[in-house]
Amino acid sequence: MRGLWLEDQHPRLRDDLPQPVPGPGEALVRVRLAGICATDLELKLGYYPFSGIPGHEFVGEIVAAPDPPWRAGQRVVGEINLPCRDCAQCRAQRGNHCERRRVLGIHGHDGAFAEFLVLPLANLHPVPDAIPDEAAVFCEPLAAALRIQAQRPIHPGERVLLVGAGRLGQLIALSLAGGHGELQVVARHPRQRALLEANRIAWIGEDEVAEGAWDLVIEASGTLAGFDLARRALRAAGTLILKSTYASRAEINLSRLVVDEITLIGSRCGPFGPALERLRQGLDPRPLIDGRYPLDQAVAAFAQAARPGTLKILIECGGTS
Amino acid sequence: MRGLWLEDQHPRLRDDLPQPVPGPGEALVRVRLAGICATDLELKLGYYPFSGIPGHEFVGEIVAAPDPPWRAGQRVVGEINLPCRDCAQCRAQRGNHCERRRVLGIHGHDGAFAEFLVLPLANLHPVPDAIPDEAAVFCEPLAAALRIQAQRPIHPGERVLLVGAGRLGQLIALSLAGGHGELQVVARHPRQRALLEANRIAWIGEDEVAEGAWDLVIEASGTLAGFDLARRALRAAGTLILKSTYASRAEINLSRLVVDEITLIGSRCGPFGPALERLRQGLDPRPLIDGRYPLDQAVAAFAQAARPGTLKILIECGGTS
Repeated sequence: MRGLWLEDQHPRLRDDLPQPVPGPGEALVRVRLAGICATDLELKLGYYPFSGIPGHEFVGEIVAAPDPPWRAGQRVVGEINLPCRDCAQCRAQRGNHCERRRVLGIHGHDGAFAEFLVLPLANLHPVPDAIPDEAAVFCEPLAAALRIQAQRPIHPGERVLLVGAGRLGQLIALSLAGGHGELQVVARHPRQRALLEANRIAWIGEDEVAEGAWDLVIEASGTLAGFDLARRALRAAGTLILKSTYASRAEINLSRLVVDEITLIGSRCGPFGPALERLRQGLDPRPLIDGRYPLDQAVAAFAQAARPGTLKILIECGGTS
Repeated sequence: MRGLWLEDQHPRLRDDLPQPVPGPGEALVRVRLAGICATDLELKLGYYPFSGIPGHEFVGEIVAAPDPPWRAGQRVVGEINLPCRDCAQCRAQRGNHCERRRVLGIHGHDGAFAEFLVLPLANLHPVPDAIPDEAAVFCEPLAAALRIQAQRPIHPGERVLLVGAGRLGQLIALSLAGGHGELQVVARHPRQRALLEANRIAWIGEDEVAEGAWDLVIEASGTLAGFDLARRALRAAGTLILKSTYASRAEINLSRLVVDEITLIGSRCGPFGPALERLRQGLDPRPLIDGRYPLDQAVAAFAQAARPGTLKILIECGGTS
């Protein structure tokens, strides 16, 4: 089959990849549309030592599955962690933190930038008809955005500041809009601001961030400058949610965390069910799409995705059986 | 009156200090016994720019108070934060995080290493007759220990690791012993281990700390090595409570916090009511007392408290009216 192959941090298109074969309890999925995420760009930069087919945001359709209610042609999205179901974390129902997990397109399991992929049926979620492919492909990052509220419910009237209005930041803003908190988003670029305005989400510039003025701050810029800004914006006894990974270690004043009784929460993958439900109810991430490339041009798609200010780039994988 | 005076990081005994005068809603307290804490030693080292009478762990008796039910001779302990009752934090019932707070013996308000001190009545708690002075003087650090469970309840069967078995660590261990979690304490010194054994609390050496094996880790060593050990001991999706301040900034891998979805909670002052109740029920901190000095010898008391391995040093302030 055709797919994007990453090796030694070098992505190239290949036509000679073997079509993956589903094992027991797994399904073969034809990939319809896949999204490029910051993690994919980091793979290319070598932050994770992965060789194989990258890609973990996708919508596809089942080609073959062993069990009802699954049927061929069923549109699906898929959770990206493949737990061992045997380690201490798995036995404690924390499969996303399985000590031996493989992760779709990131670690030990080929991903979505190809005509086909294989995932356990337990990872798959049927996509309601009301959700078009172009919205369903955002299910994975939207689930990650919704993880915030699963970890730390937002109370009525809480002042919430989101630092970062890029790919993930926009989805977090959409996920929080209309909720309990009073949301403001730190946005730098006119395009980011216009997208927020279109959804009636309040934005502010970095210069407008007052010290200690927010109850809950979400850091989604992935930059140390963003982390420092988030920390300054947070009031004592407040909560700081870290939603992005960082390229380097950060210097932190731990004593201030203690004296100010700050809670810091790392946040990663989220629940697909609520994400699909929000998409079905009309949360529309499609204005974030900045480009759409056929699989043949996946290398060019990566190049555009890496350009500063680019939001979501999609790849039409169009698997044919 | 007589008291220990700290100026330019230099503590000296003075006999010419003015006796403090209570304002409206405040009480004059004769200090019976006061304890030296790590923060006092840090004041001496200049970590906080404080000039005045240090000391914030005490038991005393009311000399004069305006309102019933307070009466002269009533034994009391006192909360150390003096909030302004007017700022955003105070209006939100977070007086301990008041933006303009003064702190007994630490910031803007003279403390307990003197014959007398003044505190608002709202800060005082009567000491039940069953609690001797030598136990009541531990109320403030015991309350700080109990703050942990107020911030993060411990669930049945949770594996809890406490890093650090010094002054504060021993009190935390006592506060957790017999509770829901399966507690183990990292203790270095024979004396620390013997104290834990006397209370049937399990200790382990640093070499025995397995990676990712604990659900909840409490860092009370105040050292960056202790922080690193705590971080390594914690499982993914676990909680790390920071109970000590640190002399320097720490380098942290924020990405690991995100990927492992770690929750980091800074923890400071705690509730006096539950601390007094635990003391009344028989929690006995007195084996931690390593020395007892009259106020005249407060400078020598500080010197002993600063020696490695020393646990609690008390000062008999013996105020006479």
